Amino acid sequence: MMDRLQIILQAIEPASKTYRQKAQERIAQLLMPPKALGELLTLGTQLWAIRASEYPETSHKRIFLFGADHGVCAQGISAFGAEVTAAMMRMFAAGKAAINVLARSVGAELTVVDVGVKGLDDTNTPAPIERHKIRRGTADMSLGPAMSPREAISAIEVGLTMVERFSRQTDLFVTGDMGIGNTTASSAIVAALTGRSVAEVTGAGSGLDEQKVAHKVAVIERAIAVNRPDGKDGLDVLHKVGGLEIAAMCGLILGAAAVRKPVVIDGFISGAAALLAWHLAPACLDYMVFGHLSKERGHKVIINELGVRPLLDLNLGLGEGSGAALTLPLIDASVKILSEMGTFADLESGN
Amino acid sequence: MMDRLQIILQAIEPASKTYRQKAQERIAQLLMPPKALGELLTLGTQLWAIRASEYPETSHKRIFLFGADHGVCAQGISAFGAEVTAAMMRMFAAGKAAINVLARSVGAELTVVDVGVKGLDDTNTPAPIERHKIRRGTADMSLGPAMSPREAISAIEVGLTMVERFSRQTDLFVTGDMGIGNTTASSAIVAALTGRSVAEVTGAGSGLDEQKVAHKVAVIERAIAVNRPDGKDGLDVLHKVGGLEIAAMCGLILGAAAVRKPVVIDGFISGAAALLAWHLAPACLDYMVFGHLSKERGHKVIINELGVRPLLDLNLGLGEGSGAALTLPLIDASVKILSEMGTFADLESGN
Repeated sequence: MMDRLQIILQAIEPASKTYRQKAQERIAQLLMPPKALGELLTLGTQLWAIRASEYPETSHKRIFLFGADHGVCAQGISAFGAEVTAAMMRMFAAGKAAINVLARSVGAELTVVDVGVKGLDDTNTPAPIERHKIRRGTADMSLGPAMSPREAISAIEVGLTMVERFSRQTDLFVTGDMGIGNTTASSAIVAALTGRSVAEVTGAGSGLDEQKVAHKVAVIERAIAVNRPDGKDGLDVLHKVGGLEIAAMCGLILGAAAVRKPVVIDGFISGAAALLAWHLAPACLDYMVFGHLSKERGHKVIINELGVRPLLDLNLGLGEGSGAALTLPLIDASVKILSEMGTFADLESGN
Repeated sequence: MMDRLQIILQAIEPASKTYRQKAQERIAQLLMPPKALGELLTLGTQLWAIRASEYPETSHKRIFLFGADHGVCAQGISAFGAEVTAAMMRMFAAGKAAINVLARSVGAELTVVDVGVKGLDDTNTPAPIERHKIRRGTADMSLGPAMSPREAISAIEVGLTMVERFSRQTDLFVTGDMGIGNTTASSAIVAALTGRSVAEVTGAGSGLDEQKVAHKVAVIERAIAVNRPDGKDGLDVLHKVGGLEIAAMCGLILGAAAVRKPVVIDGFISGAAALLAWHLAPACLDYMVFGHLSKERGHKVIINELGVRPLLDLNLGLGEGSGAALTLPLIDASVKILSEMGTFADLESGN
């Protein structure tokens, strides 16, 4: 099974320089002042390069929402109880959560995957939820590793499996997460991979006050002291202080890059998965579109580390793939601008 | 005719405080941490307040693109020749410009209106263009008033007429502009209305180098010295240093506010029209949704003066309504979040 991930990592190549060049040549002819559509042109160029095509298809969009629990919740690091993860998974299945509304609004499909939700089992998992549970939540990382290296790889492989299953019918992959406690795991990952202090990358999550954020920082610091994750080894960091849903999103990103399809990254938790994926295979960054800048403070650190620019900045902090979903119409528009707009030649002939 | 505008100005009332309150109560019940969807919730609240409805309709969107020429082009203040205005109007009619592509992409209708394009006349105006020419472009404002007070009011009334004609079948009005030289007029308007120096509110427009921007600043300073617009009197500023398309957009905004419908404001030129509309009837601000922050430097001054927050910041600087068009899917999503999302009561009953 280790082989499967290695094969994917080796399959990831940079996006097409030729088509990046072609896109820039096309843009120079378009009927507008130079660069007048700013980031929309950067986005269109990226899509041409990813698909190595002048007509990259974007119509089939699918959000993959991975859910899992976090043992570190025992330390009181979240405003919500761990049981909310399973309850929210049921809401996703029932179509009642924010991401259901947003997916419908922007015309995206939604696949909900249980990779480690404690409160869901064979008897009570609603049918729309894909069952790929690796374990019933992580262990408490403040006491020892969140999971074994083997489990971390298995969780990554759930993401790879999703790409394999849906690749033919999906033009745009989108990351989404659900897991009470997962800003704690994400902050730990970001601190370990970037060398920044825990305080710099830790925020209020779903609504902690200042005192509780300080406690959360102390818990993460303990997790890092106990586990000593190696910041140069993404898999070491992931299994020691990560999460099962974060691993699965990392797999989705790597899988999308391997099949040369764009993957839209949501906010902070998805960003931690993106940072891990980039550590494992730097070229996969070419395939990522960054949806939005989360209000969770550690997200800026990720964005700076990767040197990218998120499309939206709407003070969102929900997860579920919500911020990424909102960017999907921008991606459609960017591709249409490059393929459907007239050129200065049209203007001259029209005169 | 003066009466018509006065009647509209007096008809504009603040949006509904009751429905703003109702929206906030609704949001507090939604299945997510407090404020987790940030600006999307602010937007949804605004739509409830504007329409005084728990189900504000947003499906029928229409972009109104007003085109006109600027006599000040004779002073060499633009990277493009004045003849490009008419040529671009033909491209809009032919469906080949950026705004045509974007309107199709987001599902909006487009109405193109000639309020003062020099190069279009009875013999050569393509059928899709609405003909409401007030005069064949403005006069050179660096030598005297751009137009008469009467002409300025007539141009505003073109916007009012558009609202009257399309109000029943339009849920969302969107401003758009075309007019070579209109960043020059807009900078003059913003300087006159805000008291900021011309240099602070003047940028590169469609691609001037530093030296040419300095020349543009000098021309605008001359226009202001020659005309002495009264910064407390929006109509005085408009007729002396404004533009016909800017006046028409101002009318569209006022008209939309009078019929209590939302109007999405594009970038810098539209922003100058919004600033004028706000001077004429402060309550109309409640009805405006600010699409994006333009890369044209004066736009930030407008945004600060109005105390608003644009939805997007994508380094756009095209006009035509392009930035506003890109926000329309966000507006749809914001309204659906408030009306379709489950509540914490659902979560508890689902457990």
